[in-house]
This record gives sequence, C-alpha cells and structure tokens, in this order.
Amino acid sequence: MTTENVLPLELIDKCIGSPIWVIMNGGKEFAGRLLGFDDYVNMVLEDVTEIDPIGGDKKLPKILLNGNNVCMMVPGGDGVSTFDDEEK
Amino acid sequence: MTTENVLPLELIDKCIGSPIWVIMNGGKEFAGRLLGFDDYVNMVLEDVTEIDPIGGDKKLPKILLNGNNVCMMVPGGDGVSTFDDEEK
Amino acid sequence: MTTENVLPLELIDKCIGSPIWVIMNGGKEFAGRLLGFDDYVNMVLEDVTEIDPIGGDKKLPKILLNGNNVCMMVPGGDGVSTFDDEEK
Amino acid sequence: MTTENVLPLELIDKCIGSPIWVIMNGGKEFAGRLLGFDDYVNMVLEDVTEIDPIGGDKKLPKILLNGNNVCMMVPGGDGVSTFDDEEK
Amino acid sequence: MTTENVLPLELIDKCIGSPIWVIMNGGKEFAGRLLGFDDYVNMVLEDVTEIDPIGGDKKLPKILLNGNNVCMMVPGGDGVSTFDDEEK
Amino acid sequence: MTTENVLPLELIDKCIGSPIWVIMNGGKEFAGRLLGFDDYVNMVLEDVTEIDPIGGDKKLPKILLNGNNVCMMVPGGDGVSTFDDEEK
Amino acid sequence: MTTENVLPLELIDKCIGSPIWVIMNGGKEFAGRLLGFDDYVNMVLEDVTEIDPIGGDKKLPKILLNGNNVCMMVPGGDGVSTFDDEEK
Repeated sequence: MTTENVLPLELIDKCIGSPIWVIMNGGKEFAGRLLGFDDYVNMVLEDVTEIDPIGGDKKLPKILLNGNNVCMMVPGGDGVSTFDDEEK
Repeated sequence: MTTENVLPLELIDKCIGSPIWVIMNGGKEFAGRLLGFDDYVNMVLEDVTEIDPIGGDKKLPKILLNGNNVCMMVPGGDGVSTFDDEEK
Repeated sequence: MTTENVLPLELIDKCIGSPIWVIMNGGKEFAGRLLGFDDYVNMVLEDVTEIDPIGGDKKLPKILLNGNNVCMMVPGGDGVSTFDDEEK
Repeated sequence: MTTENVLPLELIDKCIGSPIWVIMNGGKEFAGRLLGFDDYVNMVLEDVTEIDPIGGDKKLPKILLNGNNVCMMVPGGDGVSTFDDEEK
Repeated sequence: MTTENVLPLELIDKCIGSPIWVIMNGGKEFAGRLLGFDDYVNMVLEDVTEIDPIGGDKKLPKILLNGNNVCMMVPGGDGVSTFDDEEK
Repeated sequence: MTTENVLPLELIDKCIGSPIWVIMNGGKEFAGRLLGFDDYVNMVLEDVTEIDPIGGDKKLPKILLNGNNVCMMVPGGDGVSTFDDEEK
Repeated sequence: MTTENVLPLELIDKCIGSPIWVIMNGGKEFAGRLLGFDDYVNMVLEDVTEIDPIGGDKKLPKILLNGNNVCMMVPGGDGVSTFDDEEK
C-alpha cells in the first residue's frame, strides 16, 4: 500500500468540535457541531438544524443519533461549504 | 485529539431523571422523563406522551423502547426547550 | 451519576406476572400478562388480546414474541391504566 | 423477583410434539406440530398448513422456518383452541 | 423434555441429495436438489427451477442462496409431494 | 450423513476465474467473472454486465459487491448456459 | 484452488487514492476519490459528486459512508471509464 489509509473513525475524530452534516437512512438530515461519537458511530451533535425542505427546518439544542441508521456524514456542516482545514 | 469526545452513552447517562424526546425508526415519537438505559440503548421512560399529530397524543405512565429501533434522542423533551444544564 | 439508572431488563423483570402492552415493528399490538423473557427481550405472554381495530380483537391463551421485532413495551396492559405499583 | 421467569426457549421446548401456530415477518402464517428448534429459534414443523385466506390454505408435510423471520409463536396451533396442558 | 428435539440443521443435513423447496424473503421461490449448506443456512442447490408464476419458470443448473434471506425451506421439492422417507 | 455436504464457500471458491451471475436484494443483477470473495460473501467481479431490462445493460470493468445484500449467486454467468465443468 | 482469490478488502485497499463509484442501498450514488476504509467497509471519499439524475448532481468535499449501507463499489469512479491500472 503506497497511499495512507484515512480510517473512517479518524475522520470522525477530527471533526469533533466542527460542523458536520448527517443523512440518516430514511432521509432525515441534520446539520450541527459534532460533540462526540463511539465505535458504533453513534453521534452527539450540538446546535442542530434538522433540515426539512417540506415541513420547514427545526432547531434542536443537542441530539444523539443511532449509528446504525446513519447513512452518510459530511464534514463541514451543510454540504456546500469548503472543508480543507480539518486534515492539517 | 484536541477536543474532548462526549461519548453518546455519557450523554444519555446525564439525561437520567430529565425529560427527553425520542424518535423511532418508522416515525413514532415519545416525550418523557428518562429513567434508565443499557448498552443497547434500550430506554425506560416515565410520564410519557406519545406524540401523534394525526390520531392525537396519548399519555403512557411508563414505557420500554427497543434500542435497535431508536433513530434519534433529543435531551430536553420536546425539541423546542433549551437544554444547557445537563452538561454541568 | 446522581440519579439511579433503572435498567430496562430490571423493568421487564418487575413486570413478570403483571399485565403489559407490546407494540411490534410493523404495528401489531398485544396486551397480556408477562410470564417471562430472556436477554434478547423475547417475551412470553399469557391471556393475550391481539388488538386489531380493523379486523377485531383476537384472544390468544399464550404467545411468544421475537424480541428483535418488539418496538415498545408498556407496563400496565392497555396504555391507559395507571401503573405505579410495580416499582415498589 | 417474586414470580418465576418462564424463559421463552423453555416455552418452545415444552411445545415439542404439540401443535403451534407461527406468524412470520411479512405476514405468512403456519400451523403445524413442532418437531424441534435451536437457539436461533429456527423451527422444524410437521403436518403443516400454510394459512392463506386469499390464495387458499396449502398442506406441507414438513418445513424449516428461519428464526430471524419469526414474529410470533402461539402454542396450540390455530390461535383459538385452549392450551392449558403444556405448563404442567 | 419427553420428546426428542429435531434440530433444524439436522433436518437440513438429512435433505442433502434430496429435492427441497426454498422461499426467500421477498418472495422468490426455488425448487432443486440440495447439495450442501453451512451454519448460516447458506445453501447450494442443483437442477433448480426458479418458480415464477408471472414471468414463467426458469431453469438454473446450480445456485447458492444467502441464508440470511431464506424464509422457509420445505423438504420434498415442490410443497405438494409427500416426504416421509428422509427421517429414517 | 451418507451424502457429501458441498459447502457454500467451497462452491464459491471453485467459481474463481469463472463467470457467475449475482442477484442482489432489491433486484439488481450482475453477470461477470469472479475474482475473489471473503467469508462475508463480499465478492469481486470483473468484466461485469449490470443487467437492466428497463434502462439497458451497463458494462463495468470491476465491482465489489456487499455480501449482506447478495440474495443468490449462479455459477455460469447468465442463468441459461449449462455449467457442469466447475465441479471436476 | 488453482486461481488466486482477490480478497475484497485488498481490492478496496488498492483503490486508495483513486476514483471510485459507490451505490448505496436505497439508491444514492457517489463518485469520488477513496481516502480510506475500515473492516466494516465504512469509507471516506474526497472530491465527491453525489449523482442525482433528478435533483441534479451535488459536490461534496469529503464524506463518510456507512459500510452497512454500501451495496456496490466500482473502481474507476463513474462506471464508464476503463480501469486496468490498479491491479499492477
């Protein structure tokens, strides 16, 4: 292997304290600051916006997400901002 | 790691005795006081309201929720109240 | 931790011999007396009513429920009676 | 614990040789005599009727059911007969 | 236990070399001769007919089925023939 | 056991280098040459055709399939060709 | 075994630093450069395009995908380019 393997849990660990964007199985979407996680990819988020284009966004101060139901996590919070800093 | 990892199970543990809001896979929603939990995130809630915008809310004195089917847990009970105290 | 953790399996254990109400993934509902359970939350119920608002209720003398498919368990049997005694 | 815990696998064990009724996830229903089972609640049934109110019942001499897909098991075969004898 | 427990894997083992009928989760059906299996109930079938009442049956010389997706296995191949010999 | 058990993983192992046909849960179908697999039945295929009767077939030089989502594997590639050679 | 088994995790390992294309259960598709993975096939991708023929493609600088929900991975990024180099 000539290229370094960026382990998924290392990526999540680097995101602690930073905004992330999470898409759940079933389609729910959350943007917030990552407070913590565990080996099952359960995640704690703070200052959360549940993104709901139909019913309207909802603010949640803090949430716990079940890792089994996480489909995708995007560092940077909203899927549009650039996010080059967390890997330094 | 320069930022502390708030472990998901620690967050749940801090919520014992306090109101939480739980959304299940499939969409059921419950608000109640957390009495306890285990490593599978099975949870016991007390003074529960099953939130059902269509059929009407239902009061339940105590329930057990299967952790496998928990999608999201929100400290603070109803998703709108602020919740800054549980982390002190 | 300043508040005692009521473990989910302890709650179930206290319900042995008492009426409970179980909602399965997929929506089936059963009310009956809990005879026993195991660590997978497989449960044995006696004097069971399968609650079916459309097809009509059905009486079953005894059933075994697969814990994987249990969504929620309510002590007290029908979700409306009070249930303060089991925790003494 | 003041009341004896009837373990689910013990209930199944007592049903060996007796008629049971099984409902699978997805809705398939089978009535037949239980020949055996294992710890995954895989079950072997004999003299089986697949109950199909729409397409008509079907007779099967012997079947194996995958325990993962078992939702509910009812001792006594058809959900209407009484079944008091197996616990003596 | 006064009646012998016919273990599910023993039943499958007795079917090696004989015709069986398999119904998968999702509804696919296969009839063929069982060549082998493993502890996960993965199965190898030979001289297989995929039974499809709508699109028409399809012949397959040999298939491997994922045990996770097996719902039901019927010794005897087509669900109608008698099958008393495999237990001697 | 009087008949030899053809273990599923042995069947897959014999298919390495040969054409196989894979049907996934959900209905996707792939025909290609099997390059390798592991104990979870994850599979690597080469010179793959994704069979799509509606949208049209698609050629893929190499793919990895998640074993959890594999429903059925057919040695021989397209479900119609005979396939007697791989067991010698 | 006369032909070498190309282990799935080895294939993924060879793709680190190269473009891949991932299809999730549920249908989401992503093309991007693979940064890393773990034994659960969780994957980190960089310079990602979420392919959405209906809503329009979306650019994402970096994402984490849950291995449980990965259906298929295609080395080469978009399913049409040739990809012969990674195996040398």
